Amino acid sequence: MIEFQNMLEKNSKEIDRFLDSHLPTGNGLNSKLFDAMRYSSINGGKKIRAYLVLETGRFIGAINNKTLSMSKYNELIAVGSAIEAIHSYSLIHDDLPAMDNSPIRRGKASNHIKFDYHTAILAGDGLLSWAFQIIGDSNFIYNSKKRSDISFVLAKAIGPNGMVGGQQADMDFAKHKSIDLNQIEWIQNHKTGALISCCSHVASILLNASHDQKSNLIDYANHIGLAFQIADDILDLDGNEVSMGKPIRQDTKNETPNFVTILGKEKAAKRALDESSKAINLIQKFKQGSENLVSLAKYTVNRNN
Amino acid sequence: MIEFQNMLEKNSKEIDRFLDSHLPTGNGLNSKLFDAMRYSSINGGKKIRAYLVLETGRFIGAINNKTLSMSKYNELIAVGSAIEAIHSYSLIHDDLPAMDNSPIRRGKASNHIKFDYHTAILAGDGLLSWAFQIIGDSNFIYNSKKRSDISFVLAKAIGPNGMVGGQQADMDFAKHKSIDLNQIEWIQNHKTGALISCCSHVASILLNASHDQKSNLIDYANHIGLAFQIADDILDLDGNEVSMGKPIRQDTKNETPNFVTILGKEKAAKRALDESSKAINLIQKFKQGSENLVSLAKYTVNRNN
Repeated sequence: MIEFQNMLEKNSKEIDRFLDSHLPTGNGLNSKLFDAMRYSSINGGKKIRAYLVLETGRFIGAINNKTLSMSKYNELIAVGSAIEAIHSYSLIHDDLPAMDNSPIRRGKASNHIKFDYHTAILAGDGLLSWAFQIIGDSNFIYNSKKRSDISFVLAKAIGPNGMVGGQQADMDFAKHKSIDLNQIEWIQNHKTGALISCCSHVASILLNASHDQKSNLIDYANHIGLAFQIADDILDLDGNEVSMGKPIRQDTKNETPNFVTILGKEKAAKRALDESSKAINLIQKFKQGSENLVSLAKYTVNRNN
Repeated sequence: MIEFQNMLEKNSKEIDRFLDSHLPTGNGLNSKLFDAMRYSSINGGKKIRAYLVLETGRFIGAINNKTLSMSKYNELIAVGSAIEAIHSYSLIHDDLPAMDNSPIRRGKASNHIKFDYHTAILAGDGLLSWAFQIIGDSNFIYNSKKRSDISFVLAKAIGPNGMVGGQQADMDFAKHKSIDLNQIEWIQNHKTGALISCCSHVASILLNASHDQKSNLIDYANHIGLAFQIADDILDLDGNEVSMGKPIRQDTKNETPNFVTILGKEKAAKRALDESSKAINLIQKFKQGSENLVSLAKYTVNRNN
């Protein structure tokens, strides 16, 4: 687990380096926007999604008996950074007063508190656009068909039938006491699951995974995405506000149904473990190189933040 | 002029048809989002940007002695529709209470008034993501290099160094009385100009324009973009609220500097005409097929909405 944490941290620094080098800076009329985009994306979060992109890529290399070349590694880092920019945009918008109205994120003031409301909206819009600029840039991804396929898969994952649709349903229905487990699962699969499974999908495109490899890896990501979310709900009840870096017991306070309030803590924990095991089984079908993805699946249910 | 208006209207219906066929619908947990995305994009606005995409494409065909094939026409309509979705997203976010706080747009309630604040934020995010899904879809654009190049050019145009950066500067500085003409021009070139010149750029990519053709057409678009904005400032002073479909005299009311308040109405009108003439000169260098782009350049300074 310590080795895993070290790898996660190493990856996180690599992504921060990419974001720091390539996000715009300046002292012109729009520099507050650049500051706000950097504030919410660099030096914050665990960059789990980028790690999943990288390790899926490494795994596909391993099962096809290829070590990852430097140029492939760089492509995975670029795509992972773009996905982390998207994730940061979604958190900035989720925290806005009109949405979850959350003043703290990743242990510091939310974007709209640190800057202001309009800057937070635009910083989210800016990170979203910038991500597609990175994905479309031939300096970062060398094959045009891959650039275009990744852009398509990512746009679908985060659009109205994916992440944004999940957030809409979360805003409109999650506080309804009548919501059931299937609906909560649907919301989470869209709101957080779609971007997580996209990570494995785009790595499969970059590394030319076979159809079978790709579909197993996407299923793996679906399972860890759900495990991750259920663990989040448990941490919302049991976790520590400091290590979480955001307010806890929000769901209890707001009487929002979640996996724990509906299933009870014990059944929820069992369900998270089940999802994690299913994920592990899917990749252990392939004989080699699965260690890091196994560690990631275990980590999703054994973390304190 | 009547013939031009008819062509503009025909194009607008074509774009509405595309949006109506391809934007998601549904009655699920996220259907309010779909309704809101449709509300602000279909049946509203003149779709000038999509018209510019189409006519730039037609013009490149004409100067290279090719008539537009049906498949090229369809590609131009798809890309024009994606750009109109982007334009609609930018209007939805601009109208939000934290931005321009505008209750009326295109003659009807703004998105956040018709729906609610969080839905308007997410409808904007959804339209933005959806546009990249369309551009990345091989059913709509057949060549993967073109898909990826268009996606890159569009992302740059609307990102922090383009449209979103212009809106940030507009929010932070446009109300400063000390702002000068150069700064206003910078803001407008980013806030509205970048997406307009992107229209000619993407059509140049789709139609394989030569380097010289492309750069002239982008310059043409830059000039009409500026002419369009100056004419808008004149209409803000002199126009009719009903035909404009939005509140007028906002800049006077808010004491916001614009081309008219800084230059005076007469000089501003002359500057708009100059920009329009420069645009016309650029395309009349090419001997044939320039009629519709000439009409568009004239229209930008001779409109009542």
